[in-house]
Amino acid sequence: MSARSIPSEEWVVTVGFDQGMNPATGEPVGAPVPHTTAAEVDRVCREAAAAAPALAGMPIPARAELLRAAARAMERARGQIVAVADQETGLGATRLGSELTRTVGQLELFADAVIEGSVLEIVIDLPDPSARPAPRPDLRRMLVPLGPVAVFAASNFPLAFSVAGGDTASALAAGCPVVVKAHSGHPGLSVLCGQLVGEALTRAGAPAGSIGLVHGTDAGRALVTHPAIAAGGFTGSQAAGRALFDLASQRPDPIPFYGELGSLNPTVVTPGAVAAQGAELAAGFVGSLTLGAGQFCTKPGLLFLPKGHDLDAALADALRSATVGPLLNARIRIGYLQTAAAHASVRGTRPIVPVTDVSAAGYRVAPQLLAVPATELVANADTLLEECFGPAALVVEYGDADDLDRALGALPGSLTATLHADPTTEADVARRLIGWFTARAGRIVWASWPTGVAVTWAMQHGGPWPATTASIHTSVGITAVRRFQRPVVYQGLPEPLLPELLRDDNPLGITRRINGVLSAGPVLAARDLPAPA
Amino acid sequence: MSARSIPSEEWVVTVGFDQGMNPATGEPVGAPVPHTTAAEVDRVCREAAAAAPALAGMPIPARAELLRAAARAMERARGQIVAVADQETGLGATRLGSELTRTVGQLELFADAVIEGSVLEIVIDLPDPSARPAPRPDLRRMLVPLGPVAVFAASNFPLAFSVAGGDTASALAAGCPVVVKAHSGHPGLSVLCGQLVGEALTRAGAPAGSIGLVHGTDAGRALVTHPAIAAGGFTGSQAAGRALFDLASQRPDPIPFYGELGSLNPTVVTPGAVAAQGAELAAGFVGSLTLGAGQFCTKPGLLFLPKGHDLDAALADALRSATVGPLLNARIRIGYLQTAAAHASVRGTRPIVPVTDVSAAGYRVAPQLLAVPATELVANADTLLEECFGPAALVVEYGDADDLDRALGALPGSLTATLHADPTTEADVARRLIGWFTARAGRIVWASWPTGVAVTWAMQHGGPWPATTASIHTSVGITAVRRFQRPVVYQGLPEPLLPELLRDDNPLGITRRINGVLSAGPVLAARDLPAPA
Repeated sequence: MSARSIPSEEWVVTVGFDQGMNPATGEPVGAPVPHTTAAEVDRVCREAAAAAPALAGMPIPARAELLRAAARAMERARGQIVAVADQETGLGATRLGSELTRTVGQLELFADAVIEGSVLEIVIDLPDPSARPAPRPDLRRMLVPLGPVAVFAASNFPLAFSVAGGDTASALAAGCPVVVKAHSGHPGLSVLCGQLVGEALTRAGAPAGSIGLVHGTDAGRALVTHPAIAAGGFTGSQAAGRALFDLASQRPDPIPFYGELGSLNPTVVTPGAVAAQGAELAAGFVGSLTLGAGQFCTKPGLLFLPKGHDLDAALADALRSATVGPLLNARIRIGYLQTAAAHASVRGTRPIVPVTDVSAAGYRVAPQLLAVPATELVANADTLLEECFGPAALVVEYGDADDLDRALGALPGSLTATLHADPTTEADVARRLIGWFTARAGRIVWASWPTGVAVTWAMQHGGPWPATTASIHTSVGITAVRRFQRPVVYQGLPEPLLPELLRDDNPLGITRRINGVLSAGPVLAARDLPAPA
Repeated sequence: MSARSIPSEEWVVTVGFDQGMNPATGEPVGAPVPHTTAAEVDRVCREAAAAAPALAGMPIPARAELLRAAARAMERARGQIVAVADQETGLGATRLGSELTRTVGQLELFADAVIEGSVLEIVIDLPDPSARPAPRPDLRRMLVPLGPVAVFAASNFPLAFSVAGGDTASALAAGCPVVVKAHSGHPGLSVLCGQLVGEALTRAGAPAGSIGLVHGTDAGRALVTHPAIAAGGFTGSQAAGRALFDLASQRPDPIPFYGELGSLNPTVVTPGAVAAQGAELAAGFVGSLTLGAGQFCTKPGLLFLPKGHDLDAALADALRSATVGPLLNARIRIGYLQTAAAHASVRGTRPIVPVTDVSAAGYRVAPQLLAVPATELVANADTLLEECFGPAALVVEYGDADDLDRALGALPGSLTATLHADPTTEADVARRLIGWFTARAGRIVWASWPTGVAVTWAMQHGGPWPATTASIHTSVGITAVRRFQRPVVYQGLPEPLLPELLRDDNPLGITRRINGVLSAGPVLAARDLPAPA
């Protein structure tokens, strides 16, 4: 998520606490949660550092059990979690229940992956006295936990990208303690989930300090610059993410900072697709656009349609019948109104539904859908390519392939790119666009919509700047663990001194690369193995 | 390699060219090589960007063939390469021949890895309509090339970490064009290797611009900030590496910068090891220390010996009989003399060989070995823990375990850490130290010496700051490829529109993870597969 124009969190600092607000009414809910002092941040980080060796040293099955215990604790408190989350976010019980299911499933999937063991990337090269230019020693490598991870929770996924969300799950799966900076939008929910997970981890045998929680922007800055913190994970606005990335990079000892920032998620529809199923596409697009009131990282913000598409009425109808909940908080609402107004003020845009103001209670806003010729998008890129976080999008109308190419060429990196085309008559166009998307997005979606991110082995949730600060990684899916691991190789160690997972036997049946070949068995005598690669 | 006190390269800029110098005489060799202008850097980077799609699109076997062609070209020119390299570096024909063998073997090993295909990390998750909270689409993920890579060559490995070295080999293996910033210490060799590799790549079918070469510090800065460059790889001093890392991180679009900087490479010897083989250890240590005139990234700079070790005479004898070549260039010599003098000026240090000056021709210096009590190392950490790049080291004398722990606790991150102990009577001590090393180094060496880095699947050459700018990666070994790759997932694509490597069939027999399970075969029908993880 992102919007450069969203005001910073500075004002929160001046009041000294986070106050949950009901988005439907704009009224406070729950007790204020005081901001964490610098001394307290220091204490929490020191506890995390103290926990790190014991957490790293837990046997693999015990580490997996920590994740399962957290999952069970979240599931058991389902009713309470959904109720508190709905009060503070207004996202509704159905969506929040589904998000909790995903969050619990995510913790369980990472537990499965820990047990499976290939996330440890174990590689064993046996000695080779004949190697040139020098004999090769016994080398055994694995990934070890990087150390305490600072997790910056998101506003728009109060469960799946928050205290017990993907960053926390993948850091714990890596064997790293976590300190979460709660999002100011759901402080009560954060405290609740922090308690649930903290108690579950303790009962399951995790050392004290394995998960901590801090509140407030100042605490977040203290966290990312604290010497005990080894990495950061973040989902949020481009401005906040960049500021934290800069703090992480400018430390005396720079640390990796994995920020998932903003994304326009272009969707291209070809003439063949419009002809075959224009009305369905209009409805599908509006459904994806308005999901979660347009507050998804993967919201399709740009719909490329061929000129003469004749879908205005279908789009307007779909939008008028869509149910759009309130925005998450006052800052997002202000940012939405400012950016939407800036877009609407660009000459050459054409409203597909009338641009209206909403004066309802709370943080409710009207959706906005503007059409704009591709040439005008390019000419007004500075304004129109600023992400409008909320239920707004642009229909970009293109002429020939060159016109489309020029407009696509103006776009920054994205989390996703989506294509609707006829796979038989438009295969060449489709291949060309898929190639273009591959260079500029992390996930290429065919004949569907980008919202909805499955948590699986293959999932990639990331992309070139400004979609993320680190395009070589993902924040969703099993490989998210890799962000919080560091390789170590042991050279020539006697068997009894090796870490257990690197010894010849392999009682857990973990897949290891031995002399270049994958094997789930024990290390055999060198004579029984293929020649070294 | 590193030494904070080495003067910057600024003076080179003022003369406008790189001039090779014979380290044995301090006299110029070869023609001066002009520094690359800003306009020329821009042109080279644009050519790399233009080459990127075609290079990325080459079939896997053709990509491997590029690396093999580069290896053959380097091997065929062995005589000329070694002669030019020796003139400019003074490292000697034996060492340089061995380094060339390693460099050629490294290119070939990366070719093997490209063919093997697991570096592509292909993951396929088949659709699962029963998944919760939502049905799962078909998801197929692979790693794609990140884009043009800037490679900053090292002084101390003019072949293995230079134009055709590990960073270049791993970037090409990832499918990325490379622009090398030549090291000013071996400009003639850089031009030669650039021509050899460039011509070999072109003949093997690589697009123009697949490898470029620039000279000069200003050109290096222009390179790392050029919009076309997607990542940087660097081996060199902490000061230069940090400056380039900062430029990379502060770009409007930050890029990863993989710098391998300095390392003290602590070596701990226990009382049991001293008793069993003290004299051998003294000789082995001096051999490792003086290899390449002490200009290895992995030089053992700190030898921890128990008090009363009684090895002064053995160490002094070994050092007196060691052959130590000249240093690589005038800047390294000045830096060595300054840092060595600063170390020797610390009260509490005791010279094991007399501290002497060398007034021989060229860049020759005298080795320096100082003993210092562990407590004094801690008290004078600011001075004594500054890496002295060249044939100097400290013998750190420790009392009990606490004394050793305090001294080890003062050390920064390292590429390596080495242990000599009795594996039976001192197993507990050894395990404790190996645990400590694991948290602070990338390679743990047992009963040997850290110099000499085998190029294999398992090798890890990296470590926590300040050993590198990115401890989660390696610059040596097959997994170095991962630095220059970015994951992309394709969701719901029809078979004919998928990249070939992600289709159901698998003619190259690449190992892929299908529904969580590794397989080198084709995608089977879902009913024939294990249940989704």
